Amino acid sequence: MELRKGLEDVAVKETAITYIDGELGRLYYRGYSIFDLAEFSNFEETAYLIWYGKLPNEKELEELRIKLSTNRELPDSIINYIKEVKKDANPMDVLRTAISMLGVEDTDNSDIMEKSIKITSKIPTIISYFYRSRKNLEIIHPDETLSHSENFFYMLNGKKPSEIESKSMDVSLILHMDHEMNASTFACLVVASTLSDIYSSVIAGIAALKGPLHGGANAEALKQFIEIGDKKNVEDYINKRLQSGQRLMGFGHRIYKTYDPRAKIMKEYVKEITKEKGIYNLYEIANAVDEIGIKELGNKGIFPNVDFYSGLMFYSLGFDPDMFPAVFASSRVVGWTAHVVEYLKNNRLIRPKAIYIGEIGRKYLPLEDRQ
Amino acid sequence: MELRKGLEDVAVKETAITYIDGELGRLYYRGYSIFDLAEFSNFEETAYLIWYGKLPNEKELEELRIKLSTNRELPDSIINYIKEVKKDANPMDVLRTAISMLGVEDTDNSDIMEKSIKITSKIPTIISYFYRSRKNLEIIHPDETLSHSENFFYMLNGKKPSEIESKSMDVSLILHMDHEMNASTFACLVVASTLSDIYSSVIAGIAALKGPLHGGANAEALKQFIEIGDKKNVEDYINKRLQSGQRLMGFGHRIYKTYDPRAKIMKEYVKEITKEKGIYNLYEIANAVDEIGIKELGNKGIFPNVDFYSGLMFYSLGFDPDMFPAVFASSRVVGWTAHVVEYLKNNRLIRPKAIYIGEIGRKYLPLEDRQ
Repeated sequence: MELRKGLEDVAVKETAITYIDGELGRLYYRGYSIFDLAEFSNFEETAYLIWYGKLPNEKELEELRIKLSTNRELPDSIINYIKEVKKDANPMDVLRTAISMLGVEDTDNSDIMEKSIKITSKIPTIISYFYRSRKNLEIIHPDETLSHSENFFYMLNGKKPSEIESKSMDVSLILHMDHEMNASTFACLVVASTLSDIYSSVIAGIAALKGPLHGGANAEALKQFIEIGDKKNVEDYINKRLQSGQRLMGFGHRIYKTYDPRAKIMKEYVKEITKEKGIYNLYEIANAVDEIGIKELGNKGIFPNVDFYSGLMFYSLGFDPDMFPAVFASSRVVGWTAHVVEYLKNNRLIRPKAIYIGEIGRKYLPLEDRQ
Repeated sequence: MELRKGLEDVAVKETAITYIDGELGRLYYRGYSIFDLAEFSNFEETAYLIWYGKLPNEKELEELRIKLSTNRELPDSIINYIKEVKKDANPMDVLRTAISMLGVEDTDNSDIMEKSIKITSKIPTIISYFYRSRKNLEIIHPDETLSHSENFFYMLNGKKPSEIESKSMDVSLILHMDHEMNASTFACLVVASTLSDIYSSVIAGIAALKGPLHGGANAEALKQFIEIGDKKNVEDYINKRLQSGQRLMGFGHRIYKTYDPRAKIMKEYVKEITKEKGIYNLYEIANAVDEIGIKELGNKGIFPNVDFYSGLMFYSLGFDPDMFPAVFASSRVVGWTAHVVEYLKNNRLIRPKAIYIGEIGRKYLPLEDRQ
């Protein structure tokens, strides 16, 4: 039996959801280019596409819009939990707990798709309530007349988004919505394969995304830009970092060997929104790291990935850095649940093996005879 | 890229924790035969063995005993949650939520091993508090003077266990403590491989164990014995079931092609405890299903597995059938956390792939042009 640690290049399912071309830097959801979706689509429409496999017509889109907008509120018991939880709690721990509490309550027989929509609808509410509670601000209840992205921004910041804020939020969520197999999506599948419930699957996804190797890289990239402080320091910073054998945060990807298409799209919007927010200097630093970094590393296939710009984007939209993985989860939940639905159409319990390298046949000694 | 759905016969790690010989029906924890451990050991000692790789001496065992017995109580906020949660909640949902709440609170820098001991210490408390609350009984706080197994029985039933009850609880927990790779242990590893925290890993384990294909089989086996009603009905029952193409619950295992050693051990204790409890008739039915089932299926390598007798054992110890997966979790948590600690000594992010079978390059149509 061969050891396949990390499962690199081991295919665990067939999928018709997402295709990544790592050589050419292309990403497709259900066959549609991410460039088209980012430009023309929005959260609700792309979520429909990922879940159901086709772009919705007007009636289908309106039905999903209604489900997503009328399921946002949380039960009082969960609102109280979020208000009373310690203010320095990790937002991913709070999100994981709140979804687990929702799972306790939601035991009706509606199908996985309906429950997935409900979960997706509620995640921005959980994040925003915790964001405001820990800052001692009044929570802002969801507004059904707003789109998913507008409402998320509104519940967080207490005002409706500008045009660029609204579009940036939509684009950010679209770009994070799915990415084929990855640790969190796979954690969802392992749980789903035992025929556990969809809340349990999503909770496993959140649990995995919390890890710094998965959902934490964008905050590190942002921290790097803030540390550099001025674009004239970029060349020195990069040289020192690479000479001491350290990585550039937000550079390199297991699959993309060229510029991550999501980073390319995110960059355009980050440029605009940082101007509006008065933090264009951070964009200039990022842009310089991008250009000089590629000069140094591009010939090794190491380019900016989505995390390079998404931290700066989430920051511009009003999120605290420790909340970035939760924002990521609010979008990736669509991919998680779509992969679960797809996997369960032809389920097989995921039960790998381990190779035993220890002793066998040790003799049991009574307690008093042991060293 | 080859499709390895279910990851059957794919090794994801090396391990020195557990070895299963499926042909001979042998199971070893850290090289010690399960037969010796069930006969001579107890929960604390076997947990020490699985976590630390050796049998403890007196001082080491005493240190672990103190940690396991003084960390049992829950914070008031979690006790209140358990008391107020709906009485028909799924016990695994409640356990998952309570552990997630504990994870929010426990953010000190103690190492994974210390946190794992704390989690292990508290799971029986969560289960027992919920068990009693939903029956409108006063909860019973843990008693530090009792062993892990005795205290679990005491918090559940409100009285100290008899000798056979105490030994049966210890044996049951020892037999469930680890079983190499399986869906729940693997879910823990996928989460841990992102460098997420140990609570998140254990929560993923609970999420996976909740699934009927994993943690639910023993309740089904018990239900089968109750349905049969009398040992004289066994032959007819089995014939009908097999002729209609149905499985015998608790028979067959992906790895054991002979009698599961855990079932062999469990059977002895089930025989004794059902006598004490006045439900020996259920043992007689089980024993008849066992013998006749083997006559029918043994030549295909299909024999009773641990679930065949563990449901009847948990029932005899006082647990409700819907709580069996949670009891299973209270023991398997030792294996989950031991595998995480072992994996993280040489971590590699678990990120498999999928094979794309959908379309590429679909043309984005405006909403009004779609069917």
